[in-house]
Amino acid sequence: MQQSERRIPQIGIVMGSDRDLPHMEKAARFLRNLDIPFEMTALSAYRCPDRVREYGLSALGRGFEVVIAASGGTNELACLIASYTTLPVIGVPLRTDEGEASVSRELAALLSTLETPAGIPVATVGFNAVINAACLAVQILGVKDKRVRARLEEYRESRRAEETEKARRVEEAAREHHV
Amino acid sequence: MQQSERRIPQIGIVMGSDRDLPHMEKAARFLRNLDIPFEMTALSAYRCPDRVREYGLSALGRGFEVVIAASGGTNELACLIASYTTLPVIGVPLRTDEGEASVSRELAALLSTLETPAGIPVATVGFNAVINAACLAVQILGVKDKRVRARLEEYRESRRAEETEKARRVEEAAREHHV
Amino acid sequence: MQQSERRIPQIGIVMGSDRDLPHMEKAARFLRNLDIPFEMTALSAYRCPDRVREYGLSALGRGFEVVIAASGGTNELACLIASYTTLPVIGVPLRTDEGEASVSRELAALLSTLETPAGIPVATVGFNAVINAACLAVQILGVKDKRVRARLEEYRESRRAEETEKARRVEEAAREHHV
Amino acid sequence: MQQSERRIPQIGIVMGSDRDLPHMEKAARFLRNLDIPFEMTALSAYRCPDRVREYGLSALGRGFEVVIAASGGTNELACLIASYTTLPVIGVPLRTDEGEASVSRELAALLSTLETPAGIPVATVGFNAVINAACLAVQILGVKDKRVRARLEEYRESRRAEETEKARRVEEAAREHHV
Amino acid sequence: MQQSERRIPQIGIVMGSDRDLPHMEKAARFLRNLDIPFEMTALSAYRCPDRVREYGLSALGRGFEVVIAASGGTNELACLIASYTTLPVIGVPLRTDEGEASVSRELAALLSTLETPAGIPVATVGFNAVINAACLAVQILGVKDKRVRARLEEYRESRRAEETEKARRVEEAAREHHV
Amino acid sequence: MQQSERRIPQIGIVMGSDRDLPHMEKAARFLRNLDIPFEMTALSAYRCPDRVREYGLSALGRGFEVVIAASGGTNELACLIASYTTLPVIGVPLRTDEGEASVSRELAALLSTLETPAGIPVATVGFNAVINAACLAVQILGVKDKRVRARLEEYRESRRAEETEKARRVEEAAREHHV
Amino acid sequence: MQQSERRIPQIGIVMGSDRDLPHMEKAARFLRNLDIPFEMTALSAYRCPDRVREYGLSALGRGFEVVIAASGGTNELACLIASYTTLPVIGVPLRTDEGEASVSRELAALLSTLETPAGIPVATVGFNAVINAACLAVQILGVKDKRVRARLEEYRESRRAEETEKARRVEEAAREHHV
Amino acid sequence: MQQSERRIPQIGIVMGSDRDLPHMEKAARFLRNLDIPFEMTALSAYRCPDRVREYGLSALGRGFEVVIAASGGTNELACLIASYTTLPVIGVPLRTDEGEASVSRELAALLSTLETPAGIPVATVGFNAVINAACLAVQILGVKDKRVRARLEEYRESRRAEETEKARRVEEAAREHHV
Repeated sequence: MQQSERRIPQIGIVMGSDRDLPHMEKAARFLRNLDIPFEMTALSAYRCPDRVREYGLSALGRGFEVVIAASGGTNELACLIASYTTLPVIGVPLRTDEGEASVSRELAALLSTLETPAGIPVATVGFNAVINAACLAVQILGVKDKRVRARLEEYRESRRAEETEKARRVEEAAREHHV
Repeated sequence: MQQSERRIPQIGIVMGSDRDLPHMEKAARFLRNLDIPFEMTALSAYRCPDRVREYGLSALGRGFEVVIAASGGTNELACLIASYTTLPVIGVPLRTDEGEASVSRELAALLSTLETPAGIPVATVGFNAVINAACLAVQILGVKDKRVRARLEEYRESRRAEETEKARRVEEAAREHHV
Repeated sequence: MQQSERRIPQIGIVMGSDRDLPHMEKAARFLRNLDIPFEMTALSAYRCPDRVREYGLSALGRGFEVVIAASGGTNELACLIASYTTLPVIGVPLRTDEGEASVSRELAALLSTLETPAGIPVATVGFNAVINAACLAVQILGVKDKRVRARLEEYRESRRAEETEKARRVEEAAREHHV
Repeated sequence: MQQSERRIPQIGIVMGSDRDLPHMEKAARFLRNLDIPFEMTALSAYRCPDRVREYGLSALGRGFEVVIAASGGTNELACLIASYTTLPVIGVPLRTDEGEASVSRELAALLSTLETPAGIPVATVGFNAVINAACLAVQILGVKDKRVRARLEEYRESRRAEETEKARRVEEAAREHHV
Repeated sequence: MQQSERRIPQIGIVMGSDRDLPHMEKAARFLRNLDIPFEMTALSAYRCPDRVREYGLSALGRGFEVVIAASGGTNELACLIASYTTLPVIGVPLRTDEGEASVSRELAALLSTLETPAGIPVATVGFNAVINAACLAVQILGVKDKRVRARLEEYRESRRAEETEKARRVEEAAREHHV
Repeated sequence: MQQSERRIPQIGIVMGSDRDLPHMEKAARFLRNLDIPFEMTALSAYRCPDRVREYGLSALGRGFEVVIAASGGTNELACLIASYTTLPVIGVPLRTDEGEASVSRELAALLSTLETPAGIPVATVGFNAVINAACLAVQILGVKDKRVRARLEEYRESRRAEETEKARRVEEAAREHHV
Repeated sequence: MQQSERRIPQIGIVMGSDRDLPHMEKAARFLRNLDIPFEMTALSAYRCPDRVREYGLSALGRGFEVVIAASGGTNELACLIASYTTLPVIGVPLRTDEGEASVSRELAALLSTLETPAGIPVATVGFNAVINAACLAVQILGVKDKRVRARLEEYRESRRAEETEKARRVEEAAREHHV
Repeated sequence: MQQSERRIPQIGIVMGSDRDLPHMEKAARFLRNLDIPFEMTALSAYRCPDRVREYGLSALGRGFEVVIAASGGTNELACLIASYTTLPVIGVPLRTDEGEASVSRELAALLSTLETPAGIPVATVGFNAVINAACLAVQILGVKDKRVRARLEEYRESRRAEETEKARRVEEAAREHHV
C-alpha cells in the first residue's frame, strides 16, 4: 500500500449507530485487505438530520469517490446522503439488534433502501451484505484506477481457489466416510 | 366558520408530488367540512431535501399545530419533517400511480412510515387512509379546543345515522327481494 | 415536576395483558422523565369488551388527553377504545411472548392497528415501538402546553449529543484499532 | 320447506357495510337452496360499537344457532360479536371494494379474523369464501338436526356429479379437438 | 360428569404426528375441564391417505359431532377429512418443530387450512391456537346441548375474573413501584 | 411419430377444474410438438377424493410414467395423487380465475404444492408455469428414452435461435431508432 | 445391489458450499438406504461459473440420470446447471447458516429456484426438504428401472407402519394418562 | 456531445427479452439526454448461458465502464454477468408482462437480484426503476469524468425546479379552487 493513497480516504462509510460497528468491521477489513483508504463514522438520519446534510454536501470536497451507508432501521441514511451528493451511494440494510428482530423491520430496511425516487438512486445490496457493499465500492473505484481492478481480480482468483478446496472436502467426505 | 380561524392554518399538509393531489383532496374536504383552516403544498423529500428541512424548521413558527405528510414512495417525507419539529406529524402511505403499483412499493410506503427511530415518532394511518389522517389531525386539535371536539362528536353521530340507514337497506333487501 | 400536574393523569395507558408490562415500563419511564402524569391498566378487548367500552366512554371525563393502547394480538384494543372516544388514540403493536412469535401474529398486530375504518383513526407506531408511542403522546400534549414542548426540545437535544458521542466512538475505533 | 322453520331464523348474517351485499347474496342463495331460515343486517364494528354489542348479547335470545360475520376491513366485527356470545361465530374476510384493493388490507382482513385471543374463537374461512361460510354454518346446524345433514349430503352428491361432468368435458376437449 | 357421556366421544382430535402431542394436550386439558368426552389419534394425510379416508368416512358413525384436525405442514389432514364427512371440521395450523421453523412453512400451514374449495369448509383458527380449536368445538356442541353452553358461560366468567386481577396487578405496579 | 407410442399415454395431466383448461392447453401443445402421448382429465381433490384416489392407484397400471397435477386452489391434488403412487408427480400452482385473484390464494397454491411431508415429494414448478411442467415431464421421460432427449435438445436449440433473433431486434432498435 | 450399478453414479448432488454438507448428508443416507449410487460435490454458481458450466455440460456424459442442486442463497446453481443439460434437475432451497437467517434470504432461495424461464424447468421441493429431493430423484430413476420402484414401494410401506405406531402412541397417551 | 465519446459505448445495457424494451427505452432516453454513449442487447440467462458468459468476459475489453442488466424473471442475468467481470453491474428487477404479474414473480425478481454471494455484488435498484439504474450508471462514470458529474448536477437542478413548480400548482389548487 502506498502512503499517498492512505491520506485521502476514497470511501466514506457511515452507519446509523455505533451498534452497527461489528457488521461494518467486516467491510473495513475487506477494504484494508485490498489497500483502499476509507473513513468511518456514525450518523442518525432522523436524530441529527443536519449532520447528515453536512456529510452529504461535503462528501465530494473531502475526496470521497463512493459512500457506503448502512442502517438497521429504514435506510433513510443512504437516501438522504444520496439526495445531497451526486457521488454513487451504496446502501446496506442491516439487522442491528438481534433481540428485536422482526419481519416488518427487516422488510422496512430492505425496501426503504431500494425504493428511492427517480433521479436519486441508491445502489442496494442484500440484507446484512456488508462485504458486497465494500466490494461494489471497490469495483466502482476500479472504473478510474486499473491497479484497483487488478487487485479485485486477484481477490476473485483466491476465492475460486477456496471454492475448489471446498469441493474437494465435500467429495472426500462423500467417498471416505460414505457421507 | 369564523374568519379569524381561517387566517392561521392549524394543519400543514404536504404531499410527495402533485400526482397525490386527488388523494389529498379528500382530506381537504374533510377539514373544510369541520371548518379547520389548513395549508397544502408538495415537497419531494429526496429531490429537494433543503425545502423539506425549511418546512420542518418553520412549521411551528407558521402556526401549525399538526403536520400531515403523505407520500407514494417510501415515506421519508413524514420522517424527515418529524426530525425537524416536535409538532405531531401524521404519515399516510399512498399508492400514487396505479399503473406502477407493486407489492414492494406498497410495503415500502407502509413500513418506512412506521419504522422511525425512537424519539422521532410518526403517527401512521392505514394505506391510502387520507380521511383518517385528517380525522386524527382534528382529534389532536381537539386536545386544545373543545369546540373542535364538539364538531367531531357531531361528525361521528352523523356517521352512525348513515350506518343505521345501511343496515335498514340490507335488511330490506334480504326481506323483500329474498336477497 | 409540579404536584398539581400529577394528580390528573393526562395520558391513559392500556395494555392487553399484564405480560405486556415489561414493554410498557419503557414508555412509563419516558413519561416520568418528561414529568407527564399518566395512568396504566390492563384490558382484554375481547374477553372483557364491556370494560373496554367503559374505559373508552369515561376517558374524556377522567381528564385524559391521549390514550396509548398496546397489544400483542390483533390490536382491537386500540380500535375499540377509539370507537368510544374522540380523544387521539395511539396504537402500539407488540410482540408479547417471544416463545410463540410468528410472522402471522406480527403482521396481524401491525395491520389490524393500522387498518381501521374511515372516521376512527388510530395513530399507529412501529412494532414494539413503545418509546415512540409515549413520545407521540407527549408531542400531542405539546399542542396545548408550551412547557411540555420545551421539555421535548431538551430531550431531543440530549439525544443529539449522544449521537455525536457515538460518532466519535466509531471514528476512534476506525482510527486507533484500524477497525 | 316448512313454514315453521322459516319463522325463527337459525343463522344471523352481519356484514360490515351494504357494499358487502353482493358478496353475501351468494351465501344467502346457498342457505335458501338448503332451506335454512336466516336474517341479514349491516353493522360497522367501530362506527357503531354499541349496536354490535347489542347484536352479540341478543343473538342467543333471538334464536340464532350460528352467526356469520363478514367484513372487508380488519374483521373486528366477527371478533366483537364472538366476545358477547357463546354461539359459534364464523368470520369471512372480504375484499369490499376492488378499486382500493391492497396487500396490506387483504392480510389485515385475513389475519385479524384468525388471530383472536384464547377463549374467543372465530371459525375463519378463506378470503371471500362466502359459500364456505354458509356451508360451515349449515354443517354446524346439522349437529342438531339430521334432516339438515341429509340435505348437505344431497348437495355434496350433486357437486360430485358436476365434477364428473367437468372431467368429461376436459377429456373430450383433449380427444376431439386435440386440445 | 356423567359416565354415559364419557363413553361416546363427541369430539375426534387428529394430529399429523405424535410430535404434535405437546400442542394438543392443551386442547385435551381444556375439554376435560369442561367435561367433554373426546378421542385422540395421529394420522399422516399423505403417508396414510387410506387411514385418513376411513377416519373421515367413519366419523359420523362413531358418534363424533365435531372433528379437530391439527397439522404442522400444509393442513391437508383437515381438508381431506372434511371431504369425507359433513361434520364440522376445525383446522389448526401448527408449528411442529421449532428447529425447522420457516416463514414458508408457517404460511403454508395457515393458508392451506383456510383455502379449501367451495362446499368443503374448514373452520380455521389462528396459528398454534389449540385452545381456540377446542373452545370452538365446545361452542358447536352447545348448539345441541344447553348444559354445555352453560359450562362455557362459566368458563368465560372465570376468565373475566382473571382479567380483572391482571388489571389490578398492572395498576398496582404503576402506582406502588412507580413502574 | 410412431403410432405405437401414441396409444399408451406416457403422461397423465389432471387439473382441478375445467376452468384450468386454457392454462393446460399450453402444456398440451408443448407435448404434441414434441410428439409425446398424454391424457387429460379434471379432478377436484376435496369434492371427489375417491376419484383422485383411484387415479393415483391406477396411474402406474395405465402406463403413465409421469403425472402433472395443476390446481388453482391449494394444490392438494398433486399431493394426494403423490400419496397414492411412486410415479414422479409434477405440481403446478395456478391462478384459475383472474377476478378473484388474491395474495393469500397465490401463496396458498404455491406453498401447499411445495410443502409436502418427507417421503411424498411433488416436483413443483413456478406459478402458472405450465410449459415448464410439461418440459420437466419430458425431461423425465428422456431418462428412459434417448429419442425423447434428442427432441428436447432440438427444442432448446430452436429456442436459442429465437433468442439470437430477439437480441438482433433490440440492438437494431437501439441503433436505428436511437431507442 | 449389483456392483456395476455402484460404479456409475446415477445421481449427481451439488451444493453451494461445504457448509451445506450437514443438510445433504440426510439425502445421501436416504440414497444409500435405497442402494442408489451417487456422487457429491460443492460448486459456487457465481464464484466459479465456469466449473458449474462444465458440470452441466458433462453431466450426461458422466452417466448421471438426475441432478440434485441445493443452495442456501438464491438457487442459481440449480438453474444454471439446468440451462446446460436436458437431464431433470431437482432444486432444494436451503437455510445454510442459522445465524444469518432472514425472511428475504428464505424467500429469495425459494422463489429463485421456482421461477425459471419457460423451457428450463427446475423440479423444486420445499425449503430444506432434502429427503424429498432424494426421494424425487429415486422416483425419476424408477421410470427406467422397476427394481428401484419396488424399493420405493417397500420404503413407503415401512413409513406407513411407523405412522400406525405413532397413532398407537398418541391414542395410548390419551387413554392411559388422560393426556 | 463529442463524437469521440460516442464511438466507444461506456455503458452496456442487457435485458432478458425484447419484451423489456419499452422499460429500457426510458433508461436509454435518460442516457442520451446526458450524452452518454451506450449499447443495448437482449440475453436470456438460462436459455443462452454461453452468450451471457461471453458478454461478461468481453465487457471490459469492449470498453464498457458499467453494465446495466434488467430482467423480469429471477435476475440471474445481472448476477451471471457480475460473476464474469469486475466491472460494476447494476441490476433492475422488472415486471415484464402485466398479464402474468404475480406476487411471487415480483419478489423473485427483487430478491434474486439482491441476494448474491459475498464477493459478487450487484448494485440493485427498485422494482422497475430503470431511470435510477441509468442515473446510478452515470454517477459511477462521474467518478472518472468531472464533466459527467457536472451534467448530473445540472440534471438535478432542473428536477428541483420542476419540484418547485409542482409545489406551486398544489398550493394554487388549494387556494383558488378551495381544493
